[in-house]
Amino acid sequence: MVSFESDYIAGAHPEVLKQLTETNLETLSGYGTDKYCESAKEKIRKACDLEQADVEFLVGGTQANAVIISTMLADYEGVIAAETGHVSSHEAGAIEYTGHEVLMLPQENGKMRADDLRRYLEDFYADGNHEHMVFPGMVYISHPTEYGTLYTKAEMEEIAEICRSYAIPLFLDGARLGYGLMSRETDLTLPDIARLCDVFYIGGTKVGALCGEAAVFTKNNKPPHFITSVKRRGALLAKGRLLGIQFDTLFTDDLYFRIGRYAIDMAEKLKEILHRHELPFYLESPTNQQFVILENGQMEKLSREISFSFWEKYDETHTVVRLATSWSTTEEDLEALDKAL
Amino acid sequence: MVSFESDYIAGAHPEVLKQLTETNLETLSGYGTDKYCESAKEKIRKACDLEQADVEFLVGGTQANAVIISTMLADYEGVIAAETGHVSSHEAGAIEYTGHEVLMLPQENGKMRADDLRRYLEDFYADGNHEHMVFPGMVYISHPTEYGTLYTKAEMEEIAEICRSYAIPLFLDGARLGYGLMSRETDLTLPDIARLCDVFYIGGTKVGALCGEAAVFTKNNKPPHFITSVKRRGALLAKGRLLGIQFDTLFTDDLYFRIGRYAIDMAEKLKEILHRHELPFYLESPTNQQFVILENGQMEKLSREISFSFWEKYDETHTVVRLATSWSTTEEDLEALDKAL
Amino acid sequence: MVSFESDYIAGAHPEVLKQLTETNLETLSGYGTDKYCESAKEKIRKACDLEQADVEFLVGGTQANAVIISTMLADYEGVIAAETGHVSSHEAGAIEYTGHEVLMLPQENGKMRADDLRRYLEDFYADGNHEHMVFPGMVYISHPTEYGTLYTKAEMEEIAEICRSYAIPLFLDGARLGYGLMSRETDLTLPDIARLCDVFYIGGTKVGALCGEAAVFTKNNKPPHFITSVKRRGALLAKGRLLGIQFDTLFTDDLYFRIGRYAIDMAEKLKEILHRHELPFYLESPTNQQFVILENGQMEKLSREISFSFWEKYDETHTVVRLATSWSTTEEDLEALDKAL
Amino acid sequence: MVSFESDYIAGAHPEVLKQLTETNLETLSGYGTDKYCESAKEKIRKACDLEQADVEFLVGGTQANAVIISTMLADYEGVIAAETGHVSSHEAGAIEYTGHEVLMLPQENGKMRADDLRRYLEDFYADGNHEHMVFPGMVYISHPTEYGTLYTKAEMEEIAEICRSYAIPLFLDGARLGYGLMSRETDLTLPDIARLCDVFYIGGTKVGALCGEAAVFTKNNKPPHFITSVKRRGALLAKGRLLGIQFDTLFTDDLYFRIGRYAIDMAEKLKEILHRHELPFYLESPTNQQFVILENGQMEKLSREISFSFWEKYDETHTVVRLATSWSTTEEDLEALDKAL
Repeated sequence: MVSFESDYIAGAHPEVLKQLTETNLETLSGYGTDKYCESAKEKIRKACDLEQADVEFLVGGTQANAVIISTMLADYEGVIAAETGHVSSHEAGAIEYTGHEVLMLPQENGKMRADDLRRYLEDFYADGNHEHMVFPGMVYISHPTEYGTLYTKAEMEEIAEICRSYAIPLFLDGARLGYGLMSRETDLTLPDIARLCDVFYIGGTKVGALCGEAAVFTKNNKPPHFITSVKRRGALLAKGRLLGIQFDTLFTDDLYFRIGRYAIDMAEKLKEILHRHELPFYLESPTNQQFVILENGQMEKLSREISFSFWEKYDETHTVVRLATSWSTTEEDLEALDKAL
Repeated sequence: MVSFESDYIAGAHPEVLKQLTETNLETLSGYGTDKYCESAKEKIRKACDLEQADVEFLVGGTQANAVIISTMLADYEGVIAAETGHVSSHEAGAIEYTGHEVLMLPQENGKMRADDLRRYLEDFYADGNHEHMVFPGMVYISHPTEYGTLYTKAEMEEIAEICRSYAIPLFLDGARLGYGLMSRETDLTLPDIARLCDVFYIGGTKVGALCGEAAVFTKNNKPPHFITSVKRRGALLAKGRLLGIQFDTLFTDDLYFRIGRYAIDMAEKLKEILHRHELPFYLESPTNQQFVILENGQMEKLSREISFSFWEKYDETHTVVRLATSWSTTEEDLEALDKAL
Repeated sequence: MVSFESDYIAGAHPEVLKQLTETNLETLSGYGTDKYCESAKEKIRKACDLEQADVEFLVGGTQANAVIISTMLADYEGVIAAETGHVSSHEAGAIEYTGHEVLMLPQENGKMRADDLRRYLEDFYADGNHEHMVFPGMVYISHPTEYGTLYTKAEMEEIAEICRSYAIPLFLDGARLGYGLMSRETDLTLPDIARLCDVFYIGGTKVGALCGEAAVFTKNNKPPHFITSVKRRGALLAKGRLLGIQFDTLFTDDLYFRIGRYAIDMAEKLKEILHRHELPFYLESPTNQQFVILENGQMEKLSREISFSFWEKYDETHTVVRLATSWSTTEEDLEALDKAL
Repeated sequence: MVSFESDYIAGAHPEVLKQLTETNLETLSGYGTDKYCESAKEKIRKACDLEQADVEFLVGGTQANAVIISTMLADYEGVIAAETGHVSSHEAGAIEYTGHEVLMLPQENGKMRADDLRRYLEDFYADGNHEHMVFPGMVYISHPTEYGTLYTKAEMEEIAEICRSYAIPLFLDGARLGYGLMSRETDLTLPDIARLCDVFYIGGTKVGALCGEAAVFTKNNKPPHFITSVKRRGALLAKGRLLGIQFDTLFTDDLYFRIGRYAIDMAEKLKEILHRHELPFYLESPTNQQFVILENGQMEKLSREISFSFWEKYDETHTVVRLATSWSTTEEDLEALDKAL
């Protein structure tokens, strides 16, 4: 069946798979100490225009969030996130599992408002009794957000400035970063993000890899003995090459950005089709995820030919569904959707 | 350089890689709900001769140990292991990270003795004050052990019987299970293990996969909502297909066992060469890892041509080193070693 | 200075202190195994009209919340609480420290609405993707709430019924239970609470003891090896007698209820005084805590003669403050306040 | 019955109780912010001859160990202790509950040998693979030990020097410190301990208080926001006065030392009696705990008149038992024992 269910419905981008195949019989040492990991890190530093960046590879997004947040927070701190942030509700309590609270702020189209953040921090420190409360120790944002929306450069600069003024790190979850960077409506580049964030990760799983996320520590702030902390969280891959080779390929000849741009092009065509069929948008995003409202009968009928994600109930007779594009979306997929609608 | 450093120095077994390639563009749902995961589970149940077995895939060995142990122990329990067990000292405290103690017993060639286990349990319950102590809630053994040694069927039955009599589960870490099952000196089959253990995992990472371990719950005892517990430990792979396809292939046409047997054949040839050169064995194992004692000068010289693992200092002038074979070991590798010695 | 700062500003109620003194030289075994603990448990069971109740003593409120919640939740579960619940924001993340999330609902005067709870649970199970979310595994309410308000019997029955229908326990934090039970406006008795809740605790610290809370498990549902779980959380008192003797005294000759009634009488007089001086109430509660709005200059002036708690900023020129009564509040204290106003 | 069961069989030392009574109606603020806490801290600083010391009160010994160890260790670190250390086996896994491993060394009469510690640290750092192991991040000793034995000044200086050379803190569990300081065979003073240790606690529960331990951070090394970390571990007492008043009394007119000396005097008389009756000592300690070997029939008979602690089975027909003295031991108790023997 033609699927717009998510951006992780296929295997690896063919160039990534080709490189895994070509290097398959090479003898390499384990746990991320191989030459491909080194090369990938160097390429990512270059792409970030930040020679001092420390890059470390992790296997998945929830794992990356939990490892980064729990190794950077002090004992008495929690992480601030929008109530729709991935860490807030869709990771089965992975942050709490590490002993830390997610301090939730309201959201607007999936984004945290700088004003809400500022007020939260002001109020926290205004309250003389805050020793009995969880200290805000980090700000988590996702870009694109869970709703496919994007921060503008001005917005991210404002959030970063607030973080700086309270001396708490800004962490950006970039599980779908490639789609954000290649959106036609963004003014944020990878070097901008590397400059504004204290730590972020470049998502591989949803942008062409079989698995893998590249954590980037931008301010000489990688937690000490990070590999040991990764190991004790069960997150250290024996065959680290699997991550190194994939990211080395993704950052060769701009593959990561080409994947992003291709999926955005497909998403623009997808939006055109959805508009043409006059489907009401719940949220028309500038990235690879689109949210439309379907009448339940219409949804049921469409689902016989096309896969998509149930998002949430809209009202008694309507449902919000998500359609996502990726490097594996084809013109034929779009035509099939067009026809099915 | 020719390498006997470990059994995870190469990529995937060619048949595994071929299958990953052939299925690469197939559209599959995420998080282990795809048909390859289903098929792999069914094949593993068959290989275990246990239709009731629950099979779940995890990414790596330390992760599998931590997830299985922490979801099966009660709050007030710890896991008993030999002091040389992987969980005891080489996982950076991954079990303690989950809040549970590893209760260590002495070892003999890496193995737990049934008598030590029995005495520990007797003493624990003899002590009226045991409410202030960690309750023994599981027994962990590895097979092969960290020293490549194997339990006999009689030994494992005795341990299993003790566990049963105290109503605590027996957990077998099978990170290198393929090499154990195909050893020329074992009388334990996979169905034996499935019958005797309450839970175990079939190692993929060290037996031909890029990554992946297959946890097998044998007594209708999979922890409830296991996927949620896996998710909150950051251990759930979005593209679960990566694990499903690999295990489906490993358990097609006996590939898992063929890999094991091949590595054992190579190990037997390796032992012959080591004997021929009269290298003293620290431990001559019946599986794919061999431990010899090298004079330090000799070690230094050999290391220029051959990769191997430093194991431990033997005395001031000698060192224990490990040489391991795997599916990727070639006759040429053995010849190179022979020549280098 | 005359103080209405809280209900834990003095030592122990004189009868409690007297009993501690009289028993001081008695030789008693440790860790809660003494005869006073036994006697206290029996008296509490009687007061609850529930012979099957298991009673265990803990030292403080946050500790009681963390121990009870973390020993009763399954790995994959969190606890539902009003966003103003003590566990939600004033325990420095004590629940998250145990690895579990507090799932927050809106509140009304500090209370959880049954409708909000029902909707939350319905929505959770309506969402097919809930395996990636924290399962609701317990409902936490406080009675009186942090705002001194009380649930009616009908309200608590409705909440209990919802919990029963989802098979999740209802936990009542009774840090100030004595004041709730003796309120002039309540229709809930201790046996009612014991019948409706799966677990609750009877607060001692804020109702006449030096320290101590009595946890009551009402449905043969005390977690197994509870003492061991208490010990490993650092919550087991060596001289358990300190808790046993105090609760034995509190439940002798209705002292616990007499303390509650006295404080309520004082609170009613306090309300009269506040009304007479026409201070606007932020929240006029039926228990021992009253919340009034003071103009900032007035507050500053009053604070020179009377201690009270800053609660929260009301607006730029006004502040909400809390005044609390207890067994140690005297007529002279009230007169001093009256005069100061 | 006459009891030598432990040093926590009675209530509070009469002077402590008197002070609790006299201050009972005073209005004091909560959570350790009262004047008695301040005064007690100042007196302890003076007794330690260390003006820079940070003093914080905790309720019990296991709690103190868990709070101190878990707030001072880094994520990737564990604590080194003798295998008989209290944290190693009699706290139900309280350290592991905080996520950290207890790294166990052999013991001699309950003491850690400097040589064992040095070798452990040398070996750890000699091993190139230690990134997959728990880093040694603190050394835990108890003084007196669980066997009532004492470190000499030379021994403690040697251990402290090793700690310093590896830059890891030395933590002394002083649950029975008063008895160690007043032993006739010690050359270690409280200022010595304050100088040599990075952190230690002065036990109250077993030396005259109802409860309470005073943690002393000696090197300006109190963990930041310590109160918040204490709170989230459920270890912050609302009526902090209970701890402050007791320690203030214990450090007034040398009460703490007088209690220690008295119990030591009683212990010397106890030893005399035991020797006179020719009971074989399992361990004759220089502090308040004595360990003798009783024939099982003799033990059974004695237990009808005298309470003592079962320690461990010696052989099929003999048992090791412990007799302890304290401030509450009387001459009559000793006479009764003499007569019973």
